[in-house]
Amino acid sequence: MLNIKLNSKSSIYSGPTSLARFDAWLLKKNYSKIFILVDENTHQHCLPVFLNELSNLKHFEILEMPIGEENKILSISEQLWISLSDLNCDRNALLINLGGGVVSDMGGFIASTYKRGIDFVNIPTTLLAMVDASIGGKNGIDLNGIKNVVGTINLPQLVCVFPDFLKTLSKREFMNGMAEVFKHALIADSAYWNILVKCNIEKLSTEELANIVDTSVAIKSLIVKQDLNETGLRKTLNYGHTVGHALEAFFLQNGKSVLHGEAVIEGILIENTIAVKKGILGKKEAETIKKELRKYYNALNYKLSDISTIINFMLHDKKNNSSSINLALISAIGSCNEKVECTKEEIHEALQNYLLA
Amino acid sequence: MLNIKLNSKSSIYSGPTSLARFDAWLLKKNYSKIFILVDENTHQHCLPVFLNELSNLKHFEILEMPIGEENKILSISEQLWISLSDLNCDRNALLINLGGGVVSDMGGFIASTYKRGIDFVNIPTTLLAMVDASIGGKNGIDLNGIKNVVGTINLPQLVCVFPDFLKTLSKREFMNGMAEVFKHALIADSAYWNILVKCNIEKLSTEELANIVDTSVAIKSLIVKQDLNETGLRKTLNYGHTVGHALEAFFLQNGKSVLHGEAVIEGILIENTIAVKKGILGKKEAETIKKELRKYYNALNYKLSDISTIINFMLHDKKNNSSSINLALISAIGSCNEKVECTKEEIHEALQNYLLA
Repeated sequence: MLNIKLNSKSSIYSGPTSLARFDAWLLKKNYSKIFILVDENTHQHCLPVFLNELSNLKHFEILEMPIGEENKILSISEQLWISLSDLNCDRNALLINLGGGVVSDMGGFIASTYKRGIDFVNIPTTLLAMVDASIGGKNGIDLNGIKNVVGTINLPQLVCVFPDFLKTLSKREFMNGMAEVFKHALIADSAYWNILVKCNIEKLSTEELANIVDTSVAIKSLIVKQDLNETGLRKTLNYGHTVGHALEAFFLQNGKSVLHGEAVIEGILIENTIAVKKGILGKKEAETIKKELRKYYNALNYKLSDISTIINFMLHDKKNNSSSINLALISAIGSCNEKVECTKEEIHEALQNYLLA
Repeated sequence: MLNIKLNSKSSIYSGPTSLARFDAWLLKKNYSKIFILVDENTHQHCLPVFLNELSNLKHFEILEMPIGEENKILSISEQLWISLSDLNCDRNALLINLGGGVVSDMGGFIASTYKRGIDFVNIPTTLLAMVDASIGGKNGIDLNGIKNVVGTINLPQLVCVFPDFLKTLSKREFMNGMAEVFKHALIADSAYWNILVKCNIEKLSTEELANIVDTSVAIKSLIVKQDLNETGLRKTLNYGHTVGHALEAFFLQNGKSVLHGEAVIEGILIENTIAVKKGILGKKEAETIKKELRKYYNALNYKLSDISTIINFMLHDKKNNSSSINLALISAIGSCNEKVECTKEEIHEALQNYLLA
């Protein structure tokens, strides 16, 4: 159970009592109206659970968006802004985002820009959203196939991490979130890594799972608290993501279903080979990481001829400036260098070696 | 000549040397790319003047948007985001907004949301933008005919107020900006009001004009500095605007060309009659204000049957919550109460009396 204060206006509650604490918080507020953004899935499966925990939430309007990253787009934003306006939402209203990363990315963006900003609360319902997307204030939508090219950094008033929602998650969706958990251990906490590798991730007890969620929420929160605007330390969270995002975009374009976490795991493994090649990371440690992650994640398949397309996606990734590609690379388990300049050739070689290995 | 620091990352330069100071500022920065947003007018008339003053601005890309409030819309935003992306704009780029309020509203919104925020600088080219729109970090676009319903509050790195741009302004455009100048005096500075009424506004000397610009920039900046997020004091800047915006939207919908400042002056006069009726403002002072403003601004014409439409626009205005209409009303010249609760009936009566007076 956690209660983290990110700044004077933003807190994170985690654990089985988080929604009860949200309920008490709501009682002290005086919102003119409350809106709940859901997708078709969370409308059906999570909203009843959520409402059951909240005795102080009696009057609200529901906004529903279609499921999936392919709907995190401007035309859906437009519909949501218009819905809020049509429902006479004013600046003293609250938007509750109940869902995975797509819902909190979209809802955070809508709330941050509607009438120049209304309050919002994230209630993540997937592991990925609990340990990553819902925390840290990044929001946004995709445009022309480029991820999160439009958005803001704006912290929610509250994030409530309620682990019960994980019960309905498929194994694949669960492992999607675990990718970020492994990342947290690799960039910031070797003891955490040791705990994770000793667990059977696919058969966690309720207590083990709650501890993992709390630990990852704490790691991400502490990083965000120190560097909200990503000028330094926060870039370590991009570990595995520069290559991972490019793979994700590449497979999305080719109609192949690859989840964010699956792409990030491959990003981690490929970026590690670059770190080894550059003499930053020991070969043996890279192999240990690979062995552990391959227990749960299969390799992704692309062709040699796809590599330049994948690198082009990387150049469009928001985390890079135009002249070079900076990667966050680890030097050991638990220790990450936020900015290592890499040439396109080094990345090309790593993508190539990955296929041949 | 002014040099105001709003916070650690945002300053305002005003006066004939402001662009020279911007030029020196630019030299200390290391932007990956520089983009200049213009409209057709400022592209032709202001960009050459601007570039002539800047010896350190050699490489840049120009983005052009169509002229006018009717283009401060989502489809134009989308085009601009895509243009930035196509031109490989990264997070270390700078956007310079060269134009009136529409350009700085749109450009500020684009910069605040592109890749979760890039730096931007406002170079206002109209009096209205110099003393109002370019200062204070409010940006946004219109949606479904509702003004600024989508946007953020985010300060530019720099605002450069260069009075030379005013030379090309038409008399009507100039008086459009003077409406905000009169408002500044009425809400915050009776001595300033006395100076203004002694001037022949239509024949100001260069020095008188520079002093007026500096004074209004200073008044607006000081208010914004104390209350960026408009929780209290900043609401005084809405004086004349709740009724004014509704009139502006009403006339826009009816295809009648009414400028923002023209609507605000009528808003001021109508809101003053409410203040008199409520016993907040003396009748004689209201008459003095009316006499002075009518020297420069003609009455606007609507019909008795239009009043409920106008009030409906008011209910959609972002400055009001759903249950009541709060107005910023003056109690004397130079003194403004930021929040006076008014009934629809009081406003209806004032709009009616205005027609009959």
